[in-house]
Amino acid sequence: MILTVTLNPALDVTYHVDRLRLGETHRVTTVTARAGGKGVNVARVLHALGEPVLACGLAGGSTGQHIDALLRAAGVGVRFTAIEADSRRTVVIAGPGQTTGLWEPGPGITGTEWSRFLADYRSHVTSAHTVVLSGSLPPGVPDNAYAELIAAARSVGVGTVLDADGDALRHGVAAGPDLVKPNVSELAAAVGGVVDDAEQALHAAHALRAAGPAVVVASLGALGMVVATAGRSYRAYSPERVSGNPTGAGDAAVAALARGLIRDDGWPTLLADAVALSAAAVRAPAAGEFCAAIVDRIRAGVVVTTSRVGTGHAADRQQ
Amino acid sequence: MILTVTLNPALDVTYHVDRLRLGETHRVTTVTARAGGKGVNVARVLHALGEPVLACGLAGGSTGQHIDALLRAAGVGVRFTAIEADSRRTVVIAGPGQTTGLWEPGPGITGTEWSRFLADYRSHVTSAHTVVLSGSLPPGVPDNAYAELIAAARSVGVGTVLDADGDALRHGVAAGPDLVKPNVSELAAAVGGVVDDAEQALHAAHALRAAGPAVVVASLGALGMVVATAGRSYRAYSPERVSGNPTGAGDAAVAALARGLIRDDGWPTLLADAVALSAAAVRAPAAGEFCAAIVDRIRAGVVVTTSRVGTGHAADRQQ
Repeated sequence: MILTVTLNPALDVTYHVDRLRLGETHRVTTVTARAGGKGVNVARVLHALGEPVLACGLAGGSTGQHIDALLRAAGVGVRFTAIEADSRRTVVIAGPGQTTGLWEPGPGITGTEWSRFLADYRSHVTSAHTVVLSGSLPPGVPDNAYAELIAAARSVGVGTVLDADGDALRHGVAAGPDLVKPNVSELAAAVGGVVDDAEQALHAAHALRAAGPAVVVASLGALGMVVATAGRSYRAYSPERVSGNPTGAGDAAVAALARGLIRDDGWPTLLADAVALSAAAVRAPAAGEFCAAIVDRIRAGVVVTTSRVGTGHAADRQQ
Repeated sequence: MILTVTLNPALDVTYHVDRLRLGETHRVTTVTARAGGKGVNVARVLHALGEPVLACGLAGGSTGQHIDALLRAAGVGVRFTAIEADSRRTVVIAGPGQTTGLWEPGPGITGTEWSRFLADYRSHVTSAHTVVLSGSLPPGVPDNAYAELIAAARSVGVGTVLDADGDALRHGVAAGPDLVKPNVSELAAAVGGVVDDAEQALHAAHALRAAGPAVVVASLGALGMVVATAGRSYRAYSPERVSGNPTGAGDAAVAALARGLIRDDGWPTLLADAVALSAAAVRAPAAGEFCAAIVDRIRAGVVVTTSRVGTGHAADRQQ
């Protein structure tokens, strides 16, 4: 079982309107609600892949209940630790050709609630093959939360995948997770540099790797992914251009990476899966969804190249 | 006790943002939630005036529970009939100098739920002095709902005040409520005419009165109010210009009118109260609130004039 941790899940609400006009009042034609938050998206993708998964985290109030109920209805295993405050909502206003987003702040978490989550997590983690830690920390959760969760997993021999930003990423990286997956801007911010192309991304990924994680996989949008391991660099991309909804593409990649780590797939296989699943997620209408046929088609065209560290990035192996 | 009926209550959520930009994603700095819907606003004003009130209507789901809980916390008597679907939310995005509103559609009401509400209403109405029927009808509630509720109140000798729009107003008017309070656009639409000034509003109010209600009170915004009774016309206005939030001003007027009808205040007193409370509500930050000191100050300046029907509108009496 893969354990996903979502400390700040959201109810993702979409309001469909004819056209959004600033300063006016609109009748919303339809309202749709989905369970969201990065870890929740990862859990949904893993479940769709047929991978046993348990989604844990912090959720509360009527919004938390709604998130919980939607995940259960989708067949995803859920075990949120209850909090007093209401979980956050995101509201996306979708009009023709344009979406405008509003993200509520996360709920305040008390010290007692955080301690209760740690106890629940320690109990879940013993039956996990790997743990995926994704997304932002709500107010009240300590900055080093992911470091604590990574250490607790390691103490029982369970691997960890981290997808976070800012201070949460910085602390988490130092705790030495098995894999960290920043996107371009998170990677650039983490190493304090500029990342404009795949070559720069590989340099930055190796720099970030030096700070603690065993492997850094950076997602570069249309440029695919780069990987920094102890001795090698990899680059993977799809020659096929996809357009659509980038929300959740990173979460689909994380799901593929977590599954590949468990299976002990080699990096070429693992990266081809991750790139294809991520690209297919872009084509899907909502985060956490994908069409298996599109994954297969894209996967067949994914290019993976690799080189030894220090030799420069040459296409010494190509899938 | 005054019974307020809100068949389509809302959770009024306000998102504060630095500035709303179309097509972008925003972090919401603060979220506030209030119980809303026209009848709910009337109930809150009556409660603030010290008037015994019971708020009934249809509410469901976690949003309905939230509306219920907020009203109870404010000390307002509540007895909503439960529905299966989630009550609606309104979301107002408030940035500096601009608010943009999004109104969810109302929940679908089943025939069984409507029958259950009718039974609950018949039980509440026997202990009411007057009933206030306010706002839109959610999907599934019949267009003649207000007519049915007016007839049920009349059958037990209880008076009715109606504040509605469109078909709900048209059907309700025909059932002969004691008082109808349209605003300018509702009045113009109801009589199929143009209403540009107080004189035209009085003509239209008498025309609407001929369709059923004992009294028509039209609220004209800054122009105050006009009243059409069986034999007289009244006009009331405040010389003081107020600016602020017009949401809820009509509901404050309805609360003052319902209270005045119970007390059997004469029209000059009743109208001075209604104009002052309505103007004070415009100055308050949220619907259903007002400052008593501002009400008193504005009330002292309200001008009320009256004339017999057929004599033209002359200031034959002035407060």
